[in-house]
Amino acid sequence: MSNFTIKRVLVVGGTHGNELTGVYLVKKFEEYPNIIHRSNFEALTLLANPKAIEAGRRYVDTDLNRCFNPQDLENKNLFEYEQLRAKQIAQDIREKQIDFIIDLHSTTANMGLTVILTNDHPFLLQLVTYLSAINSSVKILQYSSTTNTTQRSPYLRSLCQLNLAIEVGPIAQGILNSQLFQETETLIIKILDYVELYNQGQTPSISQTHPVYLYKQLEAVDYPRDNRGIKAMTAPELNDYEALNPGSSMFVEFSGNVLPYQGNQPVYPVFIGESSYVEKGVAMMLTERIAIEV
Amino acid sequence: MSNFTIKRVLVVGGTHGNELTGVYLVKKFEEYPNIIHRSNFEALTLLANPKAIEAGRRYVDTDLNRCFNPQDLENKNLFEYEQLRAKQIAQDIREKQIDFIIDLHSTTANMGLTVILTNDHPFLLQLVTYLSAINSSVKILQYSSTTNTTQRSPYLRSLCQLNLAIEVGPIAQGILNSQLFQETETLIIKILDYVELYNQGQTPSISQTHPVYLYKQLEAVDYPRDNRGIKAMTAPELNDYEALNPGSSMFVEFSGNVLPYQGNQPVYPVFIGESSYVEKGVAMMLTERIAIEV
Repeated sequence: MSNFTIKRVLVVGGTHGNELTGVYLVKKFEEYPNIIHRSNFEALTLLANPKAIEAGRRYVDTDLNRCFNPQDLENKNLFEYEQLRAKQIAQDIREKQIDFIIDLHSTTANMGLTVILTNDHPFLLQLVTYLSAINSSVKILQYSSTTNTTQRSPYLRSLCQLNLAIEVGPIAQGILNSQLFQETETLIIKILDYVELYNQGQTPSISQTHPVYLYKQLEAVDYPRDNRGIKAMTAPELNDYEALNPGSSMFVEFSGNVLPYQGNQPVYPVFIGESSYVEKGVAMMLTERIAIEV
Repeated sequence: MSNFTIKRVLVVGGTHGNELTGVYLVKKFEEYPNIIHRSNFEALTLLANPKAIEAGRRYVDTDLNRCFNPQDLENKNLFEYEQLRAKQIAQDIREKQIDFIIDLHSTTANMGLTVILTNDHPFLLQLVTYLSAINSSVKILQYSSTTNTTQRSPYLRSLCQLNLAIEVGPIAQGILNSQLFQETETLIIKILDYVELYNQGQTPSISQTHPVYLYKQLEAVDYPRDNRGIKAMTAPELNDYEALNPGSSMFVEFSGNVLPYQGNQPVYPVFIGESSYVEKGVAMMLTERIAIEV
Protein backbone atom coordinates (compact mmCIF):
# COMPACT_ATOMS: atom_id res chain seq x y z
CA MET A 1 0.00 0.00 0.00
CA SER A 2 1.57 3.26 -1.07
CA ASN A 3 1.86 6.04 1.46
CA PHE A 4 2.45 8.76 -1.14
CA THR A 5 1.37 9.50 -4.68
CA ILE A 6 3.62 10.49 -7.53
CA LYS A 7 1.97 13.38 -9.34
CA ARG A 8 4.56 14.56 -11.86
CA VAL A 9 7.36 12.62 -13.55
CA LEU A 10 10.03 14.42 -15.59
CA VAL A 11 11.89 12.54 -18.33
CA VAL A 12 15.14 14.35 -19.09
CA GLY A 13 17.36 13.99 -22.17
CA GLY A 14 20.41 15.92 -23.29
CA THR A 15 21.84 16.67 -19.87
CA HIS A 16 24.95 15.77 -21.86
CA GLY A 17 24.52 17.17 -25.36
CA ASN A 18 26.34 14.36 -27.18
CA GLU A 19 24.40 11.50 -25.56
CA LEU A 20 21.81 11.30 -28.30
CA THR A 21 19.73 8.33 -27.14
CA GLY A 22 18.10 10.52 -24.47
CA VAL A 23 17.89 13.56 -26.75
CA TYR A 24 16.02 11.70 -29.48
CA LEU A 25 13.83 9.72 -27.06
CA VAL A 26 12.66 13.00 -25.49
CA LYS A 27 12.01 14.43 -28.98
CA LYS A 28 10.02 11.28 -29.78
CA PHE A 29 7.98 11.59 -26.56
CA GLU A 30 7.27 15.24 -27.40
CA GLU A 31 6.07 14.19 -30.86
CA TYR A 32 4.08 11.17 -29.60
CA PRO A 33 2.99 12.15 -26.04
CA ASN A 34 0.72 9.12 -25.75
CA ILE A 35 3.80 6.94 -25.22
CA ILE A 36 4.43 8.53 -21.82
CA HIS A 37 0.88 9.60 -20.92
CA ARG A 38 -0.59 7.68 -17.95
CA SER A 39 -3.94 7.89 -16.12
CA ASN A 40 -2.92 9.06 -12.67
CA PHE A 41 0.15 11.29 -13.04
CA GLU A 42 1.55 13.85 -15.42
CA ALA A 43 4.63 12.97 -17.51
CA LEU A 44 6.74 15.93 -18.62
CA THR A 45 9.89 16.14 -20.73
CA LEU A 46 13.00 18.31 -20.71
CA LEU A 47 15.96 18.75 -23.05
CA ALA A 48 18.37 19.93 -20.40
CA ASN A 49 21.30 21.42 -22.29
CA PRO A 50 20.08 22.86 -25.61
CA LYS A 51 23.34 24.69 -26.43
CA ALA A 52 25.40 21.52 -25.94
CA ILE A 53 22.90 19.50 -28.00
CA GLU A 54 23.21 22.09 -30.76
CA ALA A 55 27.01 21.92 -30.56
CA GLY A 56 27.02 18.12 -30.37
CA ARG A 57 29.19 18.24 -27.27
CA ARG A 58 28.90 16.99 -23.69
CA TYR A 59 28.80 20.59 -22.47
CA VAL A 60 29.70 24.08 -23.58
CA ASP A 61 31.50 25.57 -20.55
CA THR A 62 31.29 22.96 -17.79
CA ASP A 63 29.53 19.64 -17.13
CA LEU A 64 25.85 20.54 -16.45
CA ASN A 65 25.43 17.34 -14.47
CA ARG A 66 27.90 18.61 -11.88
CA CYS A 67 26.17 22.00 -11.39
CA PHE A 68 23.34 21.07 -9.01
CA ASN A 69 24.99 21.22 -5.60
CA PRO A 70 22.64 23.35 -3.46
CA GLN A 71 25.44 25.75 -2.56
CA ASP A 72 26.30 26.25 -6.26
CA LEU A 73 22.67 26.84 -7.16
CA GLU A 74 22.58 29.62 -4.56
CA ASN A 75 25.96 31.09 -5.49
CA LYS A 76 25.37 34.36 -7.38
CA ASN A 77 29.00 34.48 -8.59
CA LEU A 78 28.77 31.51 -10.96
CA PHE A 79 28.17 32.75 -14.49
CA GLU A 80 29.13 29.93 -16.85
CA TYR A 81 26.42 28.82 -19.25
CA GLU A 82 25.70 25.50 -17.55
CA GLN A 83 25.79 27.11 -14.09
CA LEU A 84 23.11 29.58 -15.18
CA ARG A 85 21.09 26.88 -16.94
CA ALA A 86 21.20 24.74 -13.78
CA LYS A 87 19.59 27.54 -11.74
CA GLN A 88 16.83 27.90 -14.33
CA ILE A 89 16.17 24.15 -14.40
CA ALA A 90 16.14 23.94 -10.60
CA GLN A 91 13.57 26.74 -10.41
CA ASP A 92 11.38 25.14 -13.10
CA ILE A 93 11.43 21.75 -11.40
CA ARG A 94 10.53 23.34 -8.05
CA GLU A 95 7.71 25.41 -9.55
CA LYS A 96 6.30 22.46 -11.49
CA GLN A 97 6.42 20.33 -8.33
CA ILE A 98 8.15 17.41 -10.03
CA ASP A 99 8.13 14.26 -7.85
CA PHE A 100 10.33 11.91 -9.83
CA ILE A 101 13.14 12.57 -12.33
CA ILE A 102 14.32 10.02 -14.90
CA ASP A 103 17.52 11.28 -16.53
CA LEU A 104 18.66 9.58 -19.75
CA HIS A 105 22.36 9.04 -20.39
CA SER A 106 24.56 6.90 -22.60
CA THR A 107 28.07 5.55 -22.14
CA THR A 108 30.87 4.32 -24.37
CA ALA A 109 31.36 1.48 -21.84
CA ASN A 110 29.70 -1.88 -22.44
CA MET A 111 27.18 -1.47 -19.61
CA GLY A 112 24.01 -2.55 -21.43
CA LEU A 113 20.93 -1.13 -19.70
CA THR A 114 21.87 0.26 -16.30
CA VAL A 115 19.65 2.08 -13.82
CA ILE A 116 21.61 4.25 -11.40
CA LEU A 117 20.41 5.14 -7.90
CA THR A 118 21.89 7.90 -5.78
CA ASN A 119 20.00 6.97 -2.62
CA ASP A 120 18.25 3.94 -1.15
CA HIS A 121 14.66 5.17 -1.03
CA PRO A 122 12.42 2.06 -0.65
CA PHE A 123 10.26 3.03 -3.65
CA LEU A 124 13.32 3.24 -5.90
CA LEU A 125 14.82 0.01 -4.58
CA GLN A 126 11.54 -1.81 -5.22
CA LEU A 127 11.21 -0.28 -8.68
CA VAL A 128 14.71 -1.19 -9.86
CA THR A 129 14.47 -4.67 -8.33
CA TYR A 130 11.31 -5.14 -10.35
CA LEU A 131 13.00 -3.86 -13.54
CA SER A 132 15.96 -6.21 -13.12
CA ALA A 133 13.73 -9.15 -12.14
CA ILE A 134 11.60 -8.87 -15.30
CA ASN A 135 14.63 -8.22 -17.55
CA SER A 136 17.91 -9.79 -16.44
CA SER A 137 19.87 -7.50 -18.77
CA VAL A 138 18.90 -4.50 -16.60
CA LYS A 139 21.70 -3.82 -14.11
CA ILE A 140 21.33 -1.82 -10.90
CA LEU A 141 24.16 0.52 -9.94
CA GLN A 142 24.09 2.52 -6.71
CA TYR A 143 26.31 5.50 -6.12
CA SER A 144 27.57 6.17 -2.62
CA SER A 145 24.81 7.56 -0.45
CA THR A 146 24.99 11.22 0.43
CA THR A 147 22.70 11.42 3.42
CA ASN A 148 24.19 14.74 4.53
CA THR A 149 21.95 17.23 2.72
CA THR A 150 24.61 19.96 2.76
CA GLN A 151 26.75 17.68 0.56
CA ARG A 152 24.00 16.64 -1.80
CA SER A 153 25.03 15.22 -5.13
CA PRO A 154 25.68 17.60 -8.03
CA TYR A 155 23.47 15.73 -10.49
CA LEU A 156 20.44 17.28 -12.15
CA ARG A 157 18.28 14.37 -11.00
CA SER A 158 19.21 14.97 -7.36
CA LEU A 159 16.78 17.91 -7.40
CA CYS A 160 14.20 15.24 -6.49
CA GLN A 161 14.65 12.61 -3.83
CA LEU A 162 12.92 10.17 -6.18
CA ASN A 163 15.26 9.96 -9.11
CA LEU A 164 17.17 7.59 -11.29
CA ALA A 165 19.47 7.74 -14.28
CA ILE A 166 19.28 5.33 -17.17
CA GLU A 167 22.75 4.71 -18.60
CA VAL A 168 22.94 2.68 -21.82
CA GLY A 169 25.93 1.46 -23.78
CA PRO A 170 28.18 0.85 -25.51
CA ILE A 171 27.43 3.72 -27.81
CA ALA A 172 29.79 6.37 -29.12
CA GLN A 173 29.03 10.00 -28.43
CA GLY A 174 27.10 11.83 -31.10
CA ILE A 175 25.36 8.83 -32.65
CA LEU A 176 22.34 6.59 -32.15
CA ASN A 177 22.04 2.82 -31.96
CA SER A 178 18.56 1.67 -32.97
CA GLN A 179 18.60 -1.42 -30.75
CA LEU A 180 19.65 0.45 -27.60
CA PHE A 181 17.19 3.22 -28.50
CA GLN A 182 14.34 0.69 -28.59
CA GLU A 183 15.46 -1.07 -25.40
CA THR A 184 15.74 2.24 -23.54
CA GLU A 185 12.28 3.28 -24.67
CA THR A 186 10.85 -0.04 -23.44
CA LEU A 187 12.57 0.43 -20.07
CA ILE A 188 11.07 3.92 -19.66
CA ILE A 189 7.61 2.56 -20.53
CA LYS A 190 8.02 -0.14 -17.86
CA ILE A 191 8.96 2.50 -15.29
CA LEU A 192 5.97 4.69 -16.11
CA ASP A 193 3.66 1.64 -16.01
CA TYR A 194 5.08 0.80 -12.58
CA VAL A 195 4.46 4.35 -11.29
CA GLU A 196 0.86 4.16 -12.52
CA LEU A 197 0.32 0.88 -10.64
CA TYR A 198 2.10 2.23 -7.57
CA ASN A 199 -0.24 5.22 -7.48
CA GLN A 200 -3.14 2.74 -7.49
CA GLY A 201 -1.59 0.78 -4.60
CA GLN A 202 -1.06 -2.13 -6.99
CA THR A 203 2.69 -2.53 -7.40
CA PRO A 204 3.36 -5.76 -9.27
CA SER A 205 4.65 -8.68 -7.24
CA ILE A 206 8.06 -9.91 -8.31
CA SER A 207 8.65 -13.56 -9.10
CA GLN A 208 12.34 -14.26 -9.20
CA THR A 209 13.72 -16.36 -12.06
CA HIS A 210 17.35 -15.25 -11.71
CA PRO A 211 19.51 -13.55 -9.06
CA VAL A 212 19.07 -9.78 -8.80
CA TYR A 213 22.17 -7.84 -7.82
CA LEU A 214 22.89 -4.34 -6.72
CA TYR A 215 26.33 -3.02 -7.71
CA LYS A 216 27.39 -0.52 -5.07
CA GLN A 217 30.05 2.07 -5.84
CA LEU A 218 33.33 1.63 -3.95
CA GLU A 219 35.81 3.95 -5.66
CA ALA A 220 36.87 5.39 -8.99
CA VAL A 221 40.24 4.30 -10.39
CA ASP A 222 42.25 6.55 -12.70
CA TYR A 223 44.54 5.47 -15.53
CA PRO A 224 48.21 5.19 -14.61
CA ARG A 225 49.65 8.50 -15.82
CA ASP A 226 52.96 10.29 -16.17
CA ASN A 227 53.83 13.75 -17.44
CA ARG A 228 53.25 12.60 -21.04
CA GLY A 229 49.66 11.59 -20.30
CA ILE A 230 48.02 8.23 -19.82
CA LYS A 231 50.61 5.47 -19.63
CA ALA A 232 48.38 2.39 -19.75
CA MET A 233 45.11 1.10 -21.20
CA THR A 234 42.40 -0.91 -19.48
CA ALA A 235 43.17 -4.63 -19.84
CA PRO A 236 41.25 -6.47 -22.59
CA GLU A 237 40.12 -9.12 -20.07
CA LEU A 238 38.03 -6.56 -18.13
CA ASN A 239 34.28 -6.59 -18.61
CA ASP A 240 31.69 -4.33 -17.03
CA TYR A 241 29.84 -6.07 -14.17
CA GLU A 242 32.19 -9.08 -14.20
CA ALA A 243 34.45 -9.91 -11.25
CA LEU A 244 37.97 -8.47 -11.20
CA ASN A 245 39.93 -10.70 -8.85
CA PRO A 246 43.08 -9.85 -6.88
CA GLY A 247 46.09 -10.37 -9.17
CA SER A 248 44.05 -10.29 -12.39
CA SER A 249 44.98 -7.96 -15.27
CA MET A 250 43.71 -4.41 -14.74
CA PHE A 251 45.81 -2.21 -17.05
CA VAL A 252 48.26 -2.84 -19.90
CA GLU A 253 51.16 -0.44 -20.44
CA PHE A 254 52.03 0.54 -24.01
CA SER A 255 55.08 -1.71 -23.79
CA GLY A 256 52.71 -4.64 -23.21
CA ASN A 257 53.51 -4.87 -19.49
CA VAL A 258 50.42 -5.93 -17.51
CA LEU A 259 49.48 -4.20 -14.25
CA PRO A 260 47.41 -6.50 -11.99
CA TYR A 261 44.63 -5.49 -9.63
CA GLN A 262 46.20 -4.97 -6.21
CA GLY A 263 43.09 -5.23 -4.02
CA ASN A 264 42.31 -8.03 -1.58
CA GLN A 265 38.72 -8.71 -2.60
CA PRO A 266 36.97 -9.29 -5.91
CA VAL A 267 35.35 -6.13 -7.24
CA TYR A 268 33.03 -5.47 -10.17
CA PRO A 269 34.24 -2.68 -12.47
CA VAL A 270 31.81 -0.52 -14.41
CA PHE A 271 32.26 2.48 -16.75
CA ILE A 272 35.38 0.71 -18.11
CA GLY A 273 36.83 3.09 -20.67
CA GLU A 274 34.00 5.63 -20.54
CA SER A 275 35.29 8.30 -22.88
CA SER A 276 34.01 11.36 -21.03
CA TYR A 277 35.52 10.24 -17.72
CA VAL A 278 39.13 10.43 -18.94
CA GLU A 279 39.12 14.17 -18.15
CA LYS A 280 37.63 13.42 -14.74
CA GLY A 281 40.50 11.07 -13.90
CA VAL A 282 38.40 7.91 -14.07
CA ALA A 283 39.39 4.78 -16.02
CA MET A 284 36.69 2.70 -14.35
CA MET A 285 34.52 2.64 -11.24
CA LEU A 286 34.85 -0.31 -8.87
CA THR A 287 31.74 -1.69 -7.20
CA GLU A 288 30.82 -4.45 -4.80
CA ARG A 289 28.05 -6.84 -5.79
CA ILE A 290 25.22 -7.39 -3.35
CA ALA A 291 22.45 -9.93 -3.90
CA ILE A 292 18.99 -8.42 -3.44
CA GLU A 293 16.47 -10.53 -1.57
CA VAL A 294 13.35 -10.21 -3.66
CA MET B 1 62.18 -5.64 -59.13
CA SER B 2 61.57 -2.21 -57.65
CA ASN B 3 62.14 0.81 -59.87
CA PHE B 4 62.30 3.29 -57.00
CA THR B 5 63.47 3.32 -53.40
CA ILE B 6 61.54 4.61 -50.43
CA LYS B 7 63.89 6.72 -48.34
CA ARG B 8 61.69 8.32 -45.68
CA VAL B 9 58.43 7.06 -44.18
CA LEU B 10 56.35 9.30 -41.93
CA VAL B 11 53.99 7.73 -39.38
CA VAL B 12 51.36 10.29 -38.39
CA GLY B 13 49.08 10.24 -35.34
CA GLY B 14 46.66 12.80 -33.97
CA THR B 15 45.54 14.27 -37.29
CA HIS B 16 42.27 14.06 -35.36
CA GLY B 17 43.00 14.90 -31.73
CA ASN B 18 40.47 12.53 -30.18
CA GLU B 19 41.57 9.43 -32.14
CA LEU B 20 43.96 8.24 -29.47
CA THR B 21 45.17 4.96 -30.97
CA GLY B 22 47.38 6.86 -33.41
CA VAL B 23 48.37 9.48 -30.84
CA TYR B 24 49.61 6.91 -28.34
CA LEU B 25 51.20 4.67 -30.97
CA VAL B 26 53.26 7.63 -32.20
CA LYS B 27 54.20 8.46 -28.61
CA LYS B 28 55.25 4.82 -28.17
CA PHE B 29 57.36 4.89 -31.35
CA GLU B 30 59.04 8.09 -30.13
CA GLU B 31 59.85 6.40 -26.83
CA TYR B 32 60.94 3.10 -28.42
CA PRO B 33 62.30 4.10 -31.87
CA ASN B 34 63.65 0.60 -32.50
CA ILE B 35 60.09 -0.58 -33.22
CA ILE B 36 59.98 1.47 -36.42
CA HIS B 37 63.70 1.60 -37.25
CA ARG B 38 64.63 -0.32 -40.42
CA SER B 39 67.93 -0.87 -42.26
CA ASN B 40 67.33 0.90 -45.56
CA PHE B 41 65.01 3.83 -44.93
CA GLU B 42 64.32 6.41 -42.27
CA ALA B 43 61.07 6.21 -40.26
CA LEU B 44 59.88 9.51 -38.81
CA THR B 45 56.87 10.36 -36.65
CA LEU B 46 54.49 13.30 -36.38
CA LEU B 47 51.72 14.30 -33.98
CA ALA B 48 49.78 16.36 -36.48
CA ASN B 49 47.33 18.41 -34.40
CA PRO B 50 48.86 19.09 -30.96
CA LYS B 51 46.22 21.65 -29.90
CA ALA B 52 43.37 19.25 -30.71
CA ILE B 53 45.18 16.41 -28.90
CA GLU B 54 45.57 18.67 -25.87
CA ALA B 55 41.88 19.59 -26.04
CA GLY B 56 40.80 15.96 -26.62
CA ARG B 57 38.80 17.02 -29.66
CA ARG B 58 38.79 16.12 -33.35
CA TYR B 59 39.91 19.66 -34.19
CA VAL B 60 40.00 23.13 -32.72
CA ASP B 61 38.73 25.36 -35.56
CA THR B 62 38.25 23.10 -38.57
CA ASP B 63 39.03 19.51 -39.61
CA LEU B 64 42.81 19.42 -40.23
CA ASN B 65 42.37 16.46 -42.54
CA ARG B 66 40.39 18.63 -44.95
CA CYS B 67 43.00 21.44 -45.11
CA PHE B 68 45.49 20.01 -47.60
CA ASN B 69 44.02 20.99 -50.95
CA PRO B 70 46.90 22.58 -52.90
CA GLN B 71 44.87 25.74 -53.50
CA ASP B 72 44.11 26.06 -49.76
CA LEU B 73 47.76 25.54 -48.85
CA GLU B 74 48.66 28.43 -51.14
CA ASN B 75 45.80 30.67 -50.01
CA LYS B 76 47.23 33.42 -47.78
CA ASN B 77 43.77 34.42 -46.54
CA LEU B 78 43.14 31.26 -44.50
CA PHE B 79 43.99 31.92 -40.86
CA GLU B 80 42.26 29.26 -38.80
CA TYR B 81 44.50 27.18 -36.57
CA GLU B 82 44.32 24.00 -38.62
CA GLN B 83 44.73 25.93 -41.90
CA LEU B 84 47.97 27.43 -40.58
CA ARG B 85 49.12 24.12 -39.13
CA ALA B 86 48.50 22.43 -42.51
CA LYS B 87 50.85 24.87 -44.25
CA GLN B 88 53.54 24.19 -41.67
CA ILE B 89 53.14 20.41 -42.00
CA ALA B 90 53.17 20.60 -45.82
CA GLN B 91 56.40 22.59 -45.74
CA ASP B 92 58.04 20.18 -43.26
CA ILE B 93 57.09 17.14 -45.30
CA ARG B 94 58.45 18.74 -48.48
CA GLU B 95 61.71 19.77 -46.80
CA LYS B 96 62.21 16.36 -45.21
CA GLN B 97 61.55 14.69 -48.57
CA ILE B 98 59.07 12.21 -47.17
CA ASP B 99 58.24 9.42 -49.66
CA PHE B 100 55.45 7.58 -47.92
CA ILE B 101 52.88 8.73 -45.33
CA ILE B 102 51.01 6.36 -43.02
CA ASP B 103 48.25 8.28 -41.23
CA LEU B 104 46.65 6.63 -38.19
CA HIS B 105 42.94 7.07 -37.56
CA SER B 106 40.19 5.40 -35.56
CA THR B 107 36.46 5.13 -36.10
CA THR B 108 33.39 4.48 -33.99
CA ALA B 109 32.18 2.17 -36.79
CA ASN B 110 32.84 -1.58 -36.56
CA MET B 111 35.41 -1.58 -39.38
CA GLY B 112 38.13 -3.67 -37.71
CA LEU B 113 41.51 -2.99 -39.32
CA THR B 114 41.04 -1.04 -42.55
CA VAL B 115 43.71 0.34 -44.87
CA ILE B 116 42.47 3.22 -47.02
CA LEU B 117 43.92 4.09 -50.41
CA THR B 118 43.30 7.37 -52.21
CA ASN B 119 44.92 6.28 -55.48
CA ASP B 120 45.80 3.06 -57.27
CA HIS B 121 49.58 3.24 -57.31
CA PRO B 122 50.88 -0.30 -58.03
CA PHE B 123 53.17 -0.28 -54.99
CA LEU B 124 50.26 0.53 -52.70
CA LEU B 125 47.94 -2.01 -54.31
CA GLN B 126 50.56 -4.71 -53.90
CA LEU B 127 51.25 -3.71 -50.32
CA VAL B 128 47.62 -3.73 -49.20
CA THR B 129 46.92 -6.96 -51.08
CA TYR B 130 49.80 -8.51 -49.16
CA LEU B 131 48.47 -7.15 -45.82
CA SER B 132 44.98 -8.51 -46.46
CA ALA B 133 46.32 -11.83 -47.75
CA ILE B 134 48.40 -12.50 -44.61
CA ASN B 135 45.63 -11.27 -42.27
CA SER B 136 42.07 -11.75 -43.49
CA SER B 137 40.78 -9.26 -40.92
CA VAL B 138 42.57 -6.43 -42.79
CA LYS B 139 40.12 -4.76 -45.15
CA ILE B 140 41.07 -2.62 -48.15
CA LEU B 141 39.01 0.51 -48.82
CA GLN B 142 39.69 2.74 -51.82
CA TYR B 143 38.40 6.27 -52.06
CA SER B 144 37.43 7.64 -55.45
CA SER B 145 40.53 8.45 -57.49
CA THR B 146 41.31 12.09 -58.00
CA THR B 147 43.66 11.99 -60.93
CA ASN B 148 43.15 15.66 -61.68
CA THR B 149 45.98 17.22 -59.66
CA THR B 150 44.18 20.56 -59.38
CA GLN B 151 41.45 18.75 -57.42
CA ARG B 152 43.75 16.74 -55.23
CA SER B 153 42.31 15.32 -52.06
CA PRO B 154 42.31 17.47 -48.91
CA TYR B 155 43.87 14.80 -46.70
CA LEU B 156 47.18 15.26 -44.92
CA ARG B 157 48.47 12.02 -46.39
CA SER B 158 47.80 13.23 -49.94
CA LEU B 159 50.95 15.35 -49.62
CA CYS B 160 52.71 12.18 -50.84
CA GLN B 161 51.59 10.07 -53.76
CA LEU B 162 52.53 7.03 -51.69
CA ASN B 163 50.18 7.16 -48.76
CA LEU B 164 47.66 5.19 -46.82
CA ALA B 165 45.45 5.66 -43.82
CA ILE B 166 44.92 2.99 -41.20
CA GLU B 167 41.40 3.21 -39.81
CA VAL B 168 40.59 1.00 -36.79
CA GLY B 169 37.36 0.46 -34.94
CA PRO B 170 35.00 0.31 -33.27
CA ILE B 171 36.48 2.61 -30.68
CA ALA B 172 34.92 5.64 -29.06
CA GLN B 173 36.67 8.97 -29.39
CA GLY B 174 38.97 9.89 -26.55
CA ILE B 175 39.80 6.39 -25.35
CA LEU B 176 42.09 3.47 -26.13
CA ASN B 177 41.35 -0.18 -26.72
CA SER B 178 44.34 -2.33 -25.88
CA GLN B 179 43.50 -5.04 -28.41
CA LEU B 180 43.06 -2.63 -31.33
CA PHE B 181 46.16 -0.76 -30.18
CA GLN B 182 48.19 -3.98 -30.39
CA GLU B 183 46.69 -5.02 -33.73
CA THR B 184 47.35 -1.59 -35.24
CA GLU B 185 50.96 -1.67 -34.04
CA THR B 186 51.42 -5.10 -35.63
CA LEU B 187 49.97 -3.83 -38.91
CA ILE B 188 52.38 -0.87 -38.97
CA ILE B 189 55.30 -3.23 -38.29
CA LYS B 190 54.23 -5.41 -41.23
CA ILE B 191 54.07 -2.36 -43.50
CA LEU B 192 57.54 -1.19 -42.48
CA ASP B 193 58.93 -4.71 -42.94
CA TYR B 194 57.39 -4.77 -46.42
CA VAL B 195 58.97 -1.43 -47.32
CA GLU B 196 62.36 -2.72 -46.18
CA LEU B 197 62.01 -5.81 -48.40
CA TYR B 198 60.72 -3.71 -51.29
CA ASN B 199 63.80 -1.48 -51.08
CA GLN B 200 65.90 -4.66 -51.38
CA GLY B 201 63.89 -5.78 -54.41
CA GLN B 202 62.55 -8.69 -52.35
CA THR B 203 58.84 -8.08 -51.92
CA PRO B 204 57.29 -11.18 -50.38
CA SER B 205 55.27 -13.38 -52.69
CA ILE B 206 51.63 -13.74 -51.72
CA SER B 207 50.04 -17.15 -51.29
CA GLN B 208 46.31 -16.81 -51.23
CA THR B 209 44.36 -18.73 -48.57
CA HIS B 210 41.18 -16.62 -48.77
CA PRO B 211 39.62 -14.13 -51.19
CA VAL B 212 41.07 -10.63 -51.08
CA TYR B 213 38.65 -7.83 -51.82
CA LEU B 214 38.95 -4.16 -52.54
CA TYR B 215 35.98 -2.06 -51.38
CA LYS B 216 35.71 0.91 -53.72
CA GLN B 217 33.85 4.05 -52.65
CA LEU B 218 30.61 4.73 -54.54
CA GLU B 219 28.84 7.44 -52.57
CA ALA B 220 28.16 8.75 -49.10
CA VAL B 221 24.61 8.50 -47.77
CA ASP B 222 23.23 10.95 -45.21
CA TYR B 223 20.71 10.26 -42.46
CA PRO B 224 17.12 11.09 -43.36
CA ARG B 225 16.63 14.53 -41.79
CA ASP B 226 13.91 17.09 -41.21
CA ASN B 227 14.02 20.51 -39.58
CA ARG B 228 14.20 18.87 -36.11
CA GLY B 229 17.39 17.02 -37.00
CA ILE B 230 18.07 13.39 -37.85
CA LYS B 231 14.81 11.49 -38.29
CA ALA B 232 16.11 7.92 -38.52
CA MET B 233 18.86 5.64 -37.27
CA THR B 234 20.95 3.15 -39.23
CA ALA B 235 19.18 -0.22 -39.25
CA PRO B 236 20.46 -2.79 -36.73
CA GLU B 237 20.87 -5.38 -39.52
CA LEU B 238 23.60 -3.31 -41.23
CA ASN B 239 27.19 -4.41 -40.80
CA ASP B 240 30.32 -2.80 -42.18
CA TYR B 241 31.67 -4.69 -45.23
CA GLU B 242 28.58 -6.91 -45.48
CA ALA B 243 26.22 -6.77 -48.47
CA LEU B 244 23.25 -4.41 -48.33
CA ASN B 245 20.78 -5.76 -50.87
CA PRO B 246 18.01 -3.88 -52.70
CA GLY B 247 14.95 -3.77 -50.44
CA SER B 248 16.88 -4.60 -47.25
CA SER B 249 16.58 -2.43 -44.14
CA MET B 250 18.78 0.66 -44.29
CA PHE B 251 17.34 3.11 -41.74
CA VAL B 252 14.78 2.88 -38.92
CA GLU B 253 12.65 5.92 -38.10
CA PHE B 254 12.02 6.72 -34.43
CA SER B 255 8.48 5.43 -34.83
CA GLY B 256 9.95 2.04 -35.76
CA ASN B 257 9.17 2.43 -39.47
CA VAL B 258 11.87 0.77 -41.60
CA LEU B 259 13.32 2.51 -44.68
CA PRO B 260 14.70 -0.01 -47.20
CA TYR B 261 17.69 0.43 -49.48
CA GLN B 262 16.39 1.74 -52.80
CA GLY B 263 19.33 0.86 -55.05
CA ASN B 264 19.37 -1.76 -57.79
CA GLN B 265 22.61 -3.53 -56.90
CA PRO B 266 24.06 -4.92 -53.68
CA VAL B 267 26.48 -2.49 -52.06
CA TYR B 268 28.84 -2.80 -49.10
CA PRO B 269 28.41 -0.04 -46.52
CA VAL B 270 31.31 1.14 -44.37
CA PHE B 271 31.68 3.88 -41.74
CA ILE B 272 28.17 2.92 -40.53
CA GLY B 273 27.38 5.33 -37.71
CA GLU B 274 30.81 6.99 -37.62
CA SER B 275 30.26 9.66 -34.99
CA SER B 276 32.37 12.42 -36.54
CA TYR B 277 30.67 12.10 -39.92
CA VAL B 278 27.23 13.16 -38.65
CA GLU B 279 28.28 16.81 -39.03
CA LYS B 280 29.57 16.02 -42.53
CA GLY B 281 26.16 14.66 -43.57
CA VAL B 282 27.31 11.05 -43.76
CA ALA B 283 25.46 8.12 -42.14
CA MET B 284 27.51 5.57 -44.05
CA MET B 285 29.64 5.24 -47.17
CA LEU B 286 28.53 2.78 -49.84
CA THR B 287 31.17 0.77 -51.69
CA GLU B 288 31.33 -1.87 -54.36
CA ARG B 289 33.32 -5.03 -53.65
CA ILE B 290 35.93 -6.08 -56.19
CA ALA B 291 37.89 -9.33 -55.93
CA ILE B 292 41.62 -8.81 -56.28
CA GLU B 293 43.52 -11.34 -58.36
CA VAL B 294 46.55 -12.11 -56.27
